[in-house]
Amino acid sequence: MTTLQWRMTRLLARYHVGAAAADIDTRAAALALEQSIEMPLAAVTSAYVRDEVVARVDAITALAADRYEVTLAIATATVGRDVGQLMNMLFGNCSLQDDVVLHDVELPTDLLGHWQGPRHGLAGLRALVGAGPRALTMSALKPQGLPAAELATLAATFAAAGIDIIKDDHGIADQDYAPFAARVRACQAAVARANAASGGHGVYAPTLSGGPRQLAAQARIVREEGVQMVLACPMLMGLPVFEELLRDELDCAVLAHPALGGAARIAPPLLFGKLFRMLGADATVFPNHGGRFSYSPATCTALARAALAPWHDYKPCAPVPAGGMSVERVDEMLDFYGRDVILLIGGALLTAGAALPQRAREFVSRVHAATVASETSPP
Amino acid sequence: MTTLQWRMTRLLARYHVGAAAADIDTRAAALALEQSIEMPLAAVTSAYVRDEVVARVDAITALAADRYEVTLAIATATVGRDVGQLMNMLFGNCSLQDDVVLHDVELPTDLLGHWQGPRHGLAGLRALVGAGPRALTMSALKPQGLPAAELATLAATFAAAGIDIIKDDHGIADQDYAPFAARVRACQAAVARANAASGGHGVYAPTLSGGPRQLAAQARIVREEGVQMVLACPMLMGLPVFEELLRDELDCAVLAHPALGGAARIAPPLLFGKLFRMLGADATVFPNHGGRFSYSPATCTALARAALAPWHDYKPCAPVPAGGMSVERVDEMLDFYGRDVILLIGGALLTAGAALPQRAREFVSRVHAATVASETSPP
Repeated sequence: MTTLQWRMTRLLARYHVGAAAADIDTRAAALALEQSIEMPLAAVTSAYVRDEVVARVDAITALAADRYEVTLAIATATVGRDVGQLMNMLFGNCSLQDDVVLHDVELPTDLLGHWQGPRHGLAGLRALVGAGPRALTMSALKPQGLPAAELATLAATFAAAGIDIIKDDHGIADQDYAPFAARVRACQAAVARANAASGGHGVYAPTLSGGPRQLAAQARIVREEGVQMVLACPMLMGLPVFEELLRDELDCAVLAHPALGGAARIAPPLLFGKLFRMLGADATVFPNHGGRFSYSPATCTALARAALAPWHDYKPCAPVPAGGMSVERVDEMLDFYGRDVILLIGGALLTAGAALPQRAREFVSRVHAATVASETSPP
Repeated sequence: MTTLQWRMTRLLARYHVGAAAADIDTRAAALALEQSIEMPLAAVTSAYVRDEVVARVDAITALAADRYEVTLAIATATVGRDVGQLMNMLFGNCSLQDDVVLHDVELPTDLLGHWQGPRHGLAGLRALVGAGPRALTMSALKPQGLPAAELATLAATFAAAGIDIIKDDHGIADQDYAPFAARVRACQAAVARANAASGGHGVYAPTLSGGPRQLAAQARIVREEGVQMVLACPMLMGLPVFEELLRDELDCAVLAHPALGGAARIAPPLLFGKLFRMLGADATVFPNHGGRFSYSPATCTALARAALAPWHDYKPCAPVPAGGMSVERVDEMLDFYGRDVILLIGGALLTAGAALPQRAREFVSRVHAATVASETSPP
């Protein structure tokens, strides 16, 4: 087998590992066993296992004092085509070791071909809402606890103001005060009426939740009601469920939400940028810097790049920086992200009270004006 | 509504939060909004939402300098009966805030009644393998990469040595070198033959993996082949899938594995002890102190207590300390955990090479002898 052929049978997983210089070789070798055969190499009698299954240390690079990037070459034969098993091989056991961060992954083409990537992608989302190459706008229906009719009224207000995507808050699931079926029908109809009156193309994106049976029932309602976009939380539902849902149950656009995924010591650009995109998210929500969360500008840039950059034959996935954003930050955010972005402002609009329609229109017009003003997207 | 009635409509979530003394009240109030309505309280116009939906700060207790336990009272109406939505309310957004750890949860009886807990529990596992009130023994089939026939030979060796539970390594999924159906048939038959020859009651526990469709197909094979126990990784498959699988697809015993769950900044006793048990795990694997992982003895004790202690009407779930254990540590581990435990030794047995049958018998006889010697279980 040539080196290139061997490479094609391996994925590269890059970890950031805390260890002293004297220990890093041993630590890296132990990590390779932990993430493949989980037993001492000396006890392996099969030549096939030793040559084709055991993970190998591909590189060790110093990052800082007592901090290294360890690259493992992991056999793709151990993954099959299940994303749960991919995560198991990447970070199953070593997620339990607190000196290890899963930083990045490079998958060979054969393996990438198992996943579809975004079905619509950023260009598809723009087409859906009738937008040219500008930044898109999004707001959220909240608070949870409101009945379906009140959420629908709010949805209509946002649509009338020209907001492109109107999503359920991710905490709105299938609670008694606004059951999924009634809520989706009410909000979908309200947005359609507002669109008809304004000539706009606002899209309502309900939150999907629950186990496989409930998700299948919700997907049926989504298809029946002509819903064009949904919100899903891959880490709440499980990545294998997210994968199967997008592949087999839905053909509408999908907005991924990072709930429960933030603290998993998997680098955010990898999890919310690459992996969610690989599994089919058309847009991915993440906490913008300077909001209620602590992501740095560098993390946000890396995440947006991972979602948008050319990769395999996957369509670009729209980055959606969020988490305490306001209309006042629109210009700064567009300077930072360029126009390949969806701006999501939720609670800050709702504080406007009776002035909500004007505030929402101001959000929309600022985004449209700023994007028209800049002919090219910043790097 | 009386205080008691109000309590019944709330779950208590306890977080450990890093904050300065001057900031903790504000931080706790912000956490209550983040984990319920995710918008400013001032913008809420509905009295129902303000009174019945918004989470409230129930208590703030100092733990150490700049470290507090914040208890939130979260409305159960926001949860419904979906465990994904429970996790969303507990740790959806604040998992993205790196100053917060989800430490513990207290659920009111109504909510606990939505989940079944272990179907068999520790007593059921003992009955399954024909054991009295002693510690149980477990080993693992590995390395992945071996064909089904070789895994079956290994399973027969373990069963002949009297090991109670013989599980697939958690990395063994549905790979081409040992597909699930062929592997389960071969290992199940090999253990049955060994049991018939020895009069023993060894049980084979294959690893389930994949998305909902693959899991349903695997559950069918499990039922057809009379498999009495399975291994599942709740954090890989997603908690809502784990819940539905145990409730609707399986009636055999279930061993939960912590893969991908270690770094989620959810306290291990809560996640692997309480929550996995609540969803139906009959036994729960976790990294023992002094092995390849960094859990402290105190964490291990708390985890075992959470799995075993009286709670609602849930059966006790057997703690399975593991991760680099050896036959030499059997006595010390039994001193530490008492006899309500399953000892899992994997790789350390396999290093015995040709002496594997003797080494496995030694493991079994040490556990039986030590447990008989102690009439009562240590506290």
